[in-house]
Amino acid sequence: MSAPFDTWRDRFERLRSNKAFELTVITIIVVSALLIGAKTYEEEVSRFQEVMLWLDVGVTVFFLVEILIRMAAEKRLRDFFRKGWNIFDFLIVTASLIPMDDSEMVLLARLLRIFRVLRLVSMIPELRLLIAALFKSIPRMGYVALLMFIIFYIYGAIGSFLFASVDEKLWGNISLAMLTLFQVATFESWATAVLYPTMEHYPYAWIYFLTFIFLNAFIFLNMMMGIALDVMQKESLAIELETGEGEAAELHGLRDDVRELRAQLSRMEALLERQRR
Amino acid sequence: MSAPFDTWRDRFERLRSNKAFELTVITIIVVSALLIGAKTYEEEVSRFQEVMLWLDVGVTVFFLVEILIRMAAEKRLRDFFRKGWNIFDFLIVTASLIPMDDSEMVLLARLLRIFRVLRLVSMIPELRLLIAALFKSIPRMGYVALLMFIIFYIYGAIGSFLFASVDEKLWGNISLAMLTLFQVATFESWATAVLYPTMEHYPYAWIYFLTFIFLNAFIFLNMMMGIALDVMQKESLAIELETGEGEAAELHGLRDDVRELRAQLSRMEALLERQRR
Amino acid sequence: MSAPFDTWRDRFERLRSNKAFELTVITIIVVSALLIGAKTYEEEVSRFQEVMLWLDVGVTVFFLVEILIRMAAEKRLRDFFRKGWNIFDFLIVTASLIPMDDSEMVLLARLLRIFRVLRLVSMIPELRLLIAALFKSIPRMGYVALLMFIIFYIYGAIGSFLFASVDEKLWGNISLAMLTLFQVATFESWATAVLYPTMEHYPYAWIYFLTFIFLNAFIFLNMMMGIALDVMQKESLAIELETGEGEAAELHGLRDDVRELRAQLSRMEALLERQRR
Amino acid sequence: MSAPFDTWRDRFERLRSNKAFELTVITIIVVSALLIGAKTYEEEVSRFQEVMLWLDVGVTVFFLVEILIRMAAEKRLRDFFRKGWNIFDFLIVTASLIPMDDSEMVLLARLLRIFRVLRLVSMIPELRLLIAALFKSIPRMGYVALLMFIIFYIYGAIGSFLFASVDEKLWGNISLAMLTLFQVATFESWATAVLYPTMEHYPYAWIYFLTFIFLNAFIFLNMMMGIALDVMQKESLAIELETGEGEAAELHGLRDDVRELRAQLSRMEALLERQRR
Repeated sequence: MSAPFDTWRDRFERLRSNKAFELTVITIIVVSALLIGAKTYEEEVSRFQEVMLWLDVGVTVFFLVEILIRMAAEKRLRDFFRKGWNIFDFLIVTASLIPMDDSEMVLLARLLRIFRVLRLVSMIPELRLLIAALFKSIPRMGYVALLMFIIFYIYGAIGSFLFASVDEKLWGNISLAMLTLFQVATFESWATAVLYPTMEHYPYAWIYFLTFIFLNAFIFLNMMMGIALDVMQKESLAIELETGEGEAAELHGLRDDVRELRAQLSRMEALLERQRR
Repeated sequence: MSAPFDTWRDRFERLRSNKAFELTVITIIVVSALLIGAKTYEEEVSRFQEVMLWLDVGVTVFFLVEILIRMAAEKRLRDFFRKGWNIFDFLIVTASLIPMDDSEMVLLARLLRIFRVLRLVSMIPELRLLIAALFKSIPRMGYVALLMFIIFYIYGAIGSFLFASVDEKLWGNISLAMLTLFQVATFESWATAVLYPTMEHYPYAWIYFLTFIFLNAFIFLNMMMGIALDVMQKESLAIELETGEGEAAELHGLRDDVRELRAQLSRMEALLERQRR
Repeated sequence: MSAPFDTWRDRFERLRSNKAFELTVITIIVVSALLIGAKTYEEEVSRFQEVMLWLDVGVTVFFLVEILIRMAAEKRLRDFFRKGWNIFDFLIVTASLIPMDDSEMVLLARLLRIFRVLRLVSMIPELRLLIAALFKSIPRMGYVALLMFIIFYIYGAIGSFLFASVDEKLWGNISLAMLTLFQVATFESWATAVLYPTMEHYPYAWIYFLTFIFLNAFIFLNMMMGIALDVMQKESLAIELETGEGEAAELHGLRDDVRELRAQLSRMEALLERQRR
Repeated sequence: MSAPFDTWRDRFERLRSNKAFELTVITIIVVSALLIGAKTYEEEVSRFQEVMLWLDVGVTVFFLVEILIRMAAEKRLRDFFRKGWNIFDFLIVTASLIPMDDSEMVLLARLLRIFRVLRLVSMIPELRLLIAALFKSIPRMGYVALLMFIIFYIYGAIGSFLFASVDEKLWGNISLAMLTLFQVATFESWATAVLYPTMEHYPYAWIYFLTFIFLNAFIFLNMMMGIALDVMQKESLAIELETGEGEAAELHGLRDDVRELRAQLSRMEALLERQRR
């Protein structure tokens, strides 16, 4: 009974790595994305809506079948769950299977279906590489993000102590103040909507805003430089090692050659010495 | 009859590569650009308008003659159409020849004439190089652009599901939502005109906007770094190979010298051994 | 009496370098930060406020005890004050000890307590390194900052002479004009709120604003490039020296070997010459 | 009569290169800058204004004396005018000497005096170096600036043809359109004040604006990368040459050594051969 089962697995494996199958999956993902987009236009005729519904069911079933094929193509089921991207696909597909007919839940069901577009990332290897590179750069940015957060927190606290009376909406508490500071950090209406109204009550408020902006710009610039240098340093070291290796080996070989020359010469000198005597 | 024809081609070829001719063409392009600019000022007197019309006809005729000369200067006509920039020039010149007297079409005719300014790019070699460099960098940016588009699409869909009721103009459908998100990505009135009105209905909307901004900034920064590193790596490898080559050759020659030394020594040792016996 | 005293110091020293103790301090700093943040929400019940007050006292006492332990752990007290970060901690802790019950002073007391969050920087080595790197980059930016200030000053003076009559609030005196120029430099409403109203009175005002923006962008870009190059140059020199050193030593050793070979050969030649005679 | 004249020149030369004298000049420049700044505050009492006037005359006379000393310190007067910075100083000082008592001219006189602040640049060597570096980077940016201008011109012409009817103030003619496009390029109110009002008449206007923004961002990014790479390449080549030189010399010396070894060995072989016979 194992033989026919294996044959099926082989068929599934061939199917999984088939280029045409991959393209079909990508097409279905794009169709599913377009369906989601189309749903945001509410002027649909009821006839059209019915087609949409059937298409939606079709996409859901296709995705289910596809993931089952990919599971069946593995020797053991747990091999499937070893790759992060498989778990990612599995979660997205199963999430859209949960029946949510309740009118309350219909929004959540829609939102869950949007994430099916993300399957495009797990299907296209170049995007998978990009995402992997992004994740690798997270720890490097962590401490700078912490430092930035501390600065936002301190300025947020100062801001909400000083300016809460000026504009309750902007500086009412530390969360609002930090949001306002983020707006200032993106330079959005920071002068016309935040600085000038504040300066009418506190004429020296510009010190608070200018130090905040300079501090942010300063840390941001330094972080960019630091990361760029950090990565470059590693790169150039790797290149140096690669190109340097050949040369070092050549130099090492040369020294061995010269050492052998010396040994030979010493033998000859001994011979000559003996001849002389 | 072939001889005089060739002589004409030679004359055209000399004319084409003549510096004075090139300068004349560039001058005419600039004049044509100024004409287009002048047309945007509608307060012209009728007398002036007539002059403009004649100048316009003059420019069109000159461009036609110039491209015919450049065609005649080639040995075979298809050689002319082999260079991308020639096709570019040809299309621009012929497009402005189509007679469009219809008052409806007059706008289109004007627009087509604007593109004659682009001939400046095809005439100045430095600009041609710049454009070539720009085109070369497109594929490198392609996948990042796709990733960005996916993020915009997902956030656009979420936004139009959640916030359509808040502001129909900003979040009415997925296209409007994506345009609004592009506005947010450029930080234009993102807080005062988009975030705050939305937060009045959905107090947690800041999560949506802040994750979107951070995700965008994060991908953008990483892309910049990635491209910079990518290009740099190639550059430094090229430099390494260039400077490393001379040294490697020197080292290789040295090893050959040492090998010859050893052969010589071995011969001498054999001689000494024989003497001893 | 010295022995038990030393034992105490040893105990304090062990405690200071204890990981659990460090984590406790960091936790207390975070708690103190949360307390400050909570105070910005004014809707507190009086019962809650009392708890807050006691927590605040607790944090203050804990910080005092901690810094006393760290002082006692040093062999001599002045060793404690030799490290910049210790002085930093000492100032922050003592500042929050000053009794300020006066209602006038209560704001200042609160502000001083905010800076306790900064102790997170002095506790986490990675943040300390980041801050040190930031401080090191200050002198490099100094002269560019001076140049920028001169440009702002000159444009500020010109602006307040020319446009003071247009908008007293924006261009009333050189300080206001420089603040307005900073707003322009961040592109915040520079066209809609500053340029267009000015152009209604001075149609050529765009020359002033465009030259200012281009000058700023130009200096800023050049500064970025300059700093990046400056740092990179030092880095790559350091890498070159490091990798180059090994090779140089190898080459030097090789030359010594060859020199010895020559000496040996010279001895042998002398022997042969003598044999011949 | 030449001797005392020389002595005077020597004295002036010593004075010119005197550190204290340089500091005095810098102080006077700063005082002159503060005077200009103070003039922008119009709430001055008449008494204060008189002091200002005398200070202003003092600064002018001091600058005149200083430049005369520097002229007298040169062996020949034309040596003075050979350095660009001297001509720069000379023009600034003489410009503020022109008597302009006419109330019309008083503004121009004030503006000319502002440029005296620029003498700070010519006095501080580090700033002089910065300015020299800025000037050196101008040609490199020239062709990119030309390309950008062509794009602005074409979009400006299209914009004023299409949108002139929508908003005469923003798109009335090509100059206004280009200014509006510059506002769009800086992202200032580009969506709320420019895009959305235009889209009410031309629903597809977003194509115009988005292509413009992407084209600009694309060229700008590429230009940055290009310039950075260009400069870096030169730098790393210079470093390579510097560090490579020492190694190449060492390798060359080694080869000479080995060649001498061979000559010696050949002599010895000849000796042995002769012995054998």
